[in-house]
Amino acid sequence: MSFNTFGHLFRFTTFGESHGPAIGCVVDGCPPRIPLTAADIQQELDRRRPGQSRFTTQRQEPDAVKILSGVFTDEATGKQVTTGTPIMLMIENVDQRSKDYSEIKDKYRPGHAGYTYDAKYGIHDYRGGGRASARETAARVAAGAIARKIVPGLNVRGALVQIGEHKVDRSKWDWSAVGGNPFFWPNSAQAKELETYLDGVRKSGSSIGAVIEVVAEGVPPGLGAPVYSKLDADIAAALMGINAVKGVEIGDGFATAAMRGEDNADEMRKPDAKTNEGRPVFLSNHSGGILGGISTGQPIVARFAVKPTSSILKPRKSVDKYGAETDVSTTGRHDPCVGIRAVPIGEAMLACVLADHYLRHRGQVGESAPWPQHRA
Amino acid sequence: MSFNTFGHLFRFTTFGESHGPAIGCVVDGCPPRIPLTAADIQQELDRRRPGQSRFTTQRQEPDAVKILSGVFTDEATGKQVTTGTPIMLMIENVDQRSKDYSEIKDKYRPGHAGYTYDAKYGIHDYRGGGRASARETAARVAAGAIARKIVPGLNVRGALVQIGEHKVDRSKWDWSAVGGNPFFWPNSAQAKELETYLDGVRKSGSSIGAVIEVVAEGVPPGLGAPVYSKLDADIAAALMGINAVKGVEIGDGFATAAMRGEDNADEMRKPDAKTNEGRPVFLSNHSGGILGGISTGQPIVARFAVKPTSSILKPRKSVDKYGAETDVSTTGRHDPCVGIRAVPIGEAMLACVLADHYLRHRGQVGESAPWPQHRA
Amino acid sequence: MSFNTFGHLFRFTTFGESHGPAIGCVVDGCPPRIPLTAADIQQELDRRRPGQSRFTTQRQEPDAVKILSGVFTDEATGKQVTTGTPIMLMIENVDQRSKDYSEIKDKYRPGHAGYTYDAKYGIHDYRGGGRASARETAARVAAGAIARKIVPGLNVRGALVQIGEHKVDRSKWDWSAVGGNPFFWPNSAQAKELETYLDGVRKSGSSIGAVIEVVAEGVPPGLGAPVYSKLDADIAAALMGINAVKGVEIGDGFATAAMRGEDNADEMRKPDAKTNEGRPVFLSNHSGGILGGISTGQPIVARFAVKPTSSILKPRKSVDKYGAETDVSTTGRHDPCVGIRAVPIGEAMLACVLADHYLRHRGQVGESAPWPQHRA
Amino acid sequence: MSFNTFGHLFRFTTFGESHGPAIGCVVDGCPPRIPLTAADIQQELDRRRPGQSRFTTQRQEPDAVKILSGVFTDEATGKQVTTGTPIMLMIENVDQRSKDYSEIKDKYRPGHAGYTYDAKYGIHDYRGGGRASARETAARVAAGAIARKIVPGLNVRGALVQIGEHKVDRSKWDWSAVGGNPFFWPNSAQAKELETYLDGVRKSGSSIGAVIEVVAEGVPPGLGAPVYSKLDADIAAALMGINAVKGVEIGDGFATAAMRGEDNADEMRKPDAKTNEGRPVFLSNHSGGILGGISTGQPIVARFAVKPTSSILKPRKSVDKYGAETDVSTTGRHDPCVGIRAVPIGEAMLACVLADHYLRHRGQVGESAPWPQHRA
Repeated sequence: MSFNTFGHLFRFTTFGESHGPAIGCVVDGCPPRIPLTAADIQQELDRRRPGQSRFTTQRQEPDAVKILSGVFTDEATGKQVTTGTPIMLMIENVDQRSKDYSEIKDKYRPGHAGYTYDAKYGIHDYRGGGRASARETAARVAAGAIARKIVPGLNVRGALVQIGEHKVDRSKWDWSAVGGNPFFWPNSAQAKELETYLDGVRKSGSSIGAVIEVVAEGVPPGLGAPVYSKLDADIAAALMGINAVKGVEIGDGFATAAMRGEDNADEMRKPDAKTNEGRPVFLSNHSGGILGGISTGQPIVARFAVKPTSSILKPRKSVDKYGAETDVSTTGRHDPCVGIRAVPIGEAMLACVLADHYLRHRGQVGESAPWPQHRA
Repeated sequence: MSFNTFGHLFRFTTFGESHGPAIGCVVDGCPPRIPLTAADIQQELDRRRPGQSRFTTQRQEPDAVKILSGVFTDEATGKQVTTGTPIMLMIENVDQRSKDYSEIKDKYRPGHAGYTYDAKYGIHDYRGGGRASARETAARVAAGAIARKIVPGLNVRGALVQIGEHKVDRSKWDWSAVGGNPFFWPNSAQAKELETYLDGVRKSGSSIGAVIEVVAEGVPPGLGAPVYSKLDADIAAALMGINAVKGVEIGDGFATAAMRGEDNADEMRKPDAKTNEGRPVFLSNHSGGILGGISTGQPIVARFAVKPTSSILKPRKSVDKYGAETDVSTTGRHDPCVGIRAVPIGEAMLACVLADHYLRHRGQVGESAPWPQHRA
Repeated sequence: MSFNTFGHLFRFTTFGESHGPAIGCVVDGCPPRIPLTAADIQQELDRRRPGQSRFTTQRQEPDAVKILSGVFTDEATGKQVTTGTPIMLMIENVDQRSKDYSEIKDKYRPGHAGYTYDAKYGIHDYRGGGRASARETAARVAAGAIARKIVPGLNVRGALVQIGEHKVDRSKWDWSAVGGNPFFWPNSAQAKELETYLDGVRKSGSSIGAVIEVVAEGVPPGLGAPVYSKLDADIAAALMGINAVKGVEIGDGFATAAMRGEDNADEMRKPDAKTNEGRPVFLSNHSGGILGGISTGQPIVARFAVKPTSSILKPRKSVDKYGAETDVSTTGRHDPCVGIRAVPIGEAMLACVLADHYLRHRGQVGESAPWPQHRA
Repeated sequence: MSFNTFGHLFRFTTFGESHGPAIGCVVDGCPPRIPLTAADIQQELDRRRPGQSRFTTQRQEPDAVKILSGVFTDEATGKQVTTGTPIMLMIENVDQRSKDYSEIKDKYRPGHAGYTYDAKYGIHDYRGGGRASARETAARVAAGAIARKIVPGLNVRGALVQIGEHKVDRSKWDWSAVGGNPFFWPNSAQAKELETYLDGVRKSGSSIGAVIEVVAEGVPPGLGAPVYSKLDADIAAALMGINAVKGVEIGDGFATAAMRGEDNADEMRKPDAKTNEGRPVFLSNHSGGILGGISTGQPIVARFAVKPTSSILKPRKSVDKYGAETDVSTTGRHDPCVGIRAVPIGEAMLACVLADHYLRHRGQVGESAPWPQHRA
């Protein structure tokens, strides 16, 4: 992970600004002979796409992805498959309204990256946030669609679990509800209430924060690497690196600070021959599927907090790039809760970390699981 | 950050197991001509050293560090300075009691890395946790002592802010109290209460979690790099990678989920010519000193949650390495709250991330701050 | 340098196949505020472009480059400059003739990467060499055009110095002749003879090898890094990684095997106050500008050998991808001496290595030269 | 490969100076459960060890290696095996004679790294070359001893093929002779002549260059990675990065510049069911076992040129670190032909590159060879 490249063996490098001609990424290190079409990627992009409800930005972007390299027809099957060479994914920008930004082009919006980009580089593309825009995350979702195909049996999904003071009722968690409401909320009844709540936030010209939970099932034990490539550390970086994220936790997370050792450690029982591939059975999953930086084989559970959108109608005190004081009010198109669309982005990042570690583990240790074979 | 190496330009690679002959690290990429003696490093190691109170493990390790390479006498000053080549730091282990572990050598302790190391590698050094032991963190503190010297004017410090249900009273925060109690607690009065509380935890054969806050002052604006090397993402990885950490947050962290945009974004006022080096003044620091992955020039504030020590006297259900069910009770020497000694470790990791990004920023952009010069 | 990414701080990632829709690269880590237009890059691409004489492939590719991200208008100057974010360079393929390859699609061409790509990946895009095609090098030349702008005062140029048995007459070396003949040959008189020679090779349906020399002037002393990032090691990798290269040497290269110590070591004389920026003067440059993996401040001189094009009209014995024996004769469009167009490619790779090391050195050591200042 | 770390998945980081207390390395990413004892490493170190004949430096270093971490007893076999965690190898220096260097401590020796280290860092450990000393290569040989165990069936060996004007007679090549003379020369008869020749060089206070050939057999096809991690590019960097090396070539190397396409490309014949694991048979090996940056399955053949030792008795013109002119004559203990001991070093570097690429290939593609299986 360095500059604009994510990952070690499964890697992707993104490019593009919010109001430039295109954004996209080059996915490198992908195993060969994996069936891959643009449609596979498009279905993930469509979940993140803006303009699908009144609760996200009204910018209309089809986010149509093209594969420019790295795939070829497998003669045996007639299917398009990966070749092991770089996969270039391009998404053209079509609905830039750069004039929306002309009024604030010299002003630093509080909570935005405009000031820090200027402090670092002495120049930045202010239009729509430029490189710091959440549009960049479309490239992550595209890369994530490929990552999902790499770990056999992997299933990564996510849901919004908090928005403002509203938290999910875990006793009524329903994965099948997530796709049926504009909030990725795992409970249809609660989602209705949220519509009213979010309308209030939106109409007041304000914004609100959120917490997202992402879960990966089908992760084999053994992924991760000591000591500075721990699986949880890499997940933390991947999620914290999403725009507007201010916190990340694994398993019981911050709640462990108030827990006793006997309540936190997950007890183990003997392998059930029929289930679990001969591996020990855990009686709980406080660890969120990771111990010592290495996957346990249980579901990996991570949460991340997204701050409220900084671009709001309410005027805020700021300075311009010459140091003069001014007020800023953002009239462009923005998400009242940028956390909503972060759900597929979080899933994508988790999938990418797992794909990378799956290949890294296979590199160091090979394909045969050391345990229980080597202990038998 | 890869395997056992941390960092990009300022890098260190650690080695060693809890009950092996030695642990240590090779620090690479350090700028030349920085005064450095073993005493500089020793003073940081002494803060992390075990056995200093009844609230940490009773293992007696002097943690005496030797510098085996990478320094030389500067003829002009007569001082020992870095040469720009690898600095090898070695700490010999002296108080191993491997027999403490013979009884549990085949058993997986719930909450420990024993099972996952076996699942990954098919073998692991079970004595004292082997490579997964918190002893490895001595090497981090040693590397951090060098990192602290790289960013001019940098001051990194930390404190325990929660232990069990006990949270720090922020209205009475006193940095000067931190060194005066066995908990790194920033309030002497509260620390007294904690002694009684921790004695209770300890005597019951249990353990408890904690939250640590680390703060870096003197960080210039502009450190960090889009998009997959964001400063907050790298801090998140660095802190989540510390043993037993389950959550990380920056600035207002998870609390932002319940905040409105107008309450979260930090407003800005014009530079004060006399202060702040001509940079804009922020009216608050909800962001924790980072926007868009790049430092703002305000203090960087991060917190991390440490789970309760898994090695406890209370017996827990588990399996052995052959899959048979068993009970585990750990009688070795352990910290009742492993979060306490995590304070200097967290400081060290934050210092290392900042040193690395300081050099990376200097590489890409050079030494002259782009702002406000380029905007003047 | 990993997979399809070159460099550490100055980095680029290339993508694309010979007969796909486009090739290109993402340049990352470029310093901000460097003036850059597509024309700057185009002039370098035009030097490498095929179809400019009968001595290179007749494929007609305009190699028109587009900059899709990473640049913005600097308000102060009105010029387009780099922003420090990824620079996406795209070159569309326009003259693919994939049917040229249908006859040999199942056959391994001796000397080609077809067999090894199949052995590695189990699939490959055979059309025009796919990813292994020399078309990929257009992306290198494009990245190199940016690299040339990073080290102040840097001048990188190259020439063909051997083709078949014909070697350049160094006593008549004329840099100004290089651009005036189709061979990048530094001597106009000799170039005439080469036309006849190459026509003979071409008409016989054969091909011939070559040696290229690249020279970098204006390289400050101190670039390079011990011990596994030596400047000469990185140059060796960069040049050996060009298609068809089989040898690399620095300075006196292989000739040093037959030299005595007193003839090889470059003697030094005191700095001339007016010239050489106060640095010692070398009396010779057998070292090719590098000692101990670090630049001396003298011109860096490297040579590399390019094997004869493997795609020839003469039939060769081979097998097809099912293991059956067959003969292969390549009728597609090919360079009779692929070494000719390697001149601008070699220059580009050398420039990229130097740009990367310039930024890395600035990162570790800063902008002020340690010597002679620290010795004064 | 970055700073003092070599490799990606199989990695090692070296430390130490010629006259410091110790040198060594941390080997990271090694697969688990590989039998490894100090004796395995010692036997390779003993081949490189100085002071074994009058033709190498008379410094007496036992080069006794200790393994400080990363190995553990495998209960099933009772053997000491790798655990997958960092393997720390330490070699203490015992025969430093730093006073040998006091006379020249302020002088730059022509051909040495003293000046460039000072130009880069403003300080350097001049004693015995400090970090730039060939003593560092003992750590490479130690790491290489582990690397040799990673690729199943790999056999890496080397020989001196040129010393001064003396070249090996390839028609009488005898691998079994290499260990029986002080020059690693593959022909006992010629070795006798070389003794007289080298004595002459040594007694005249001069030195001479050499060429080394290293050959790896048992390399499976498919190792290497496009486009900037080509196997030949990584070999080139690994060999060029050895002290005093000025040139590297693969297969026919520089000779290909004068070859025709039909003479250079290696023709292929159908797989022989009994031999070659069902892979095509090559009729020659001009390519040196690598096509398109990927191994063919044939032996990998590389050569590198080592310049004459710069430390000679004959006085040479130079300057001191204050810029004053002076003469330098080196009276310390030195190799008259530093190329001799480069044989085991070159072997070690080749083994390390192959181990790294073996793991990287297994990571991306897995363990089953794509060809011929996927073509069957």
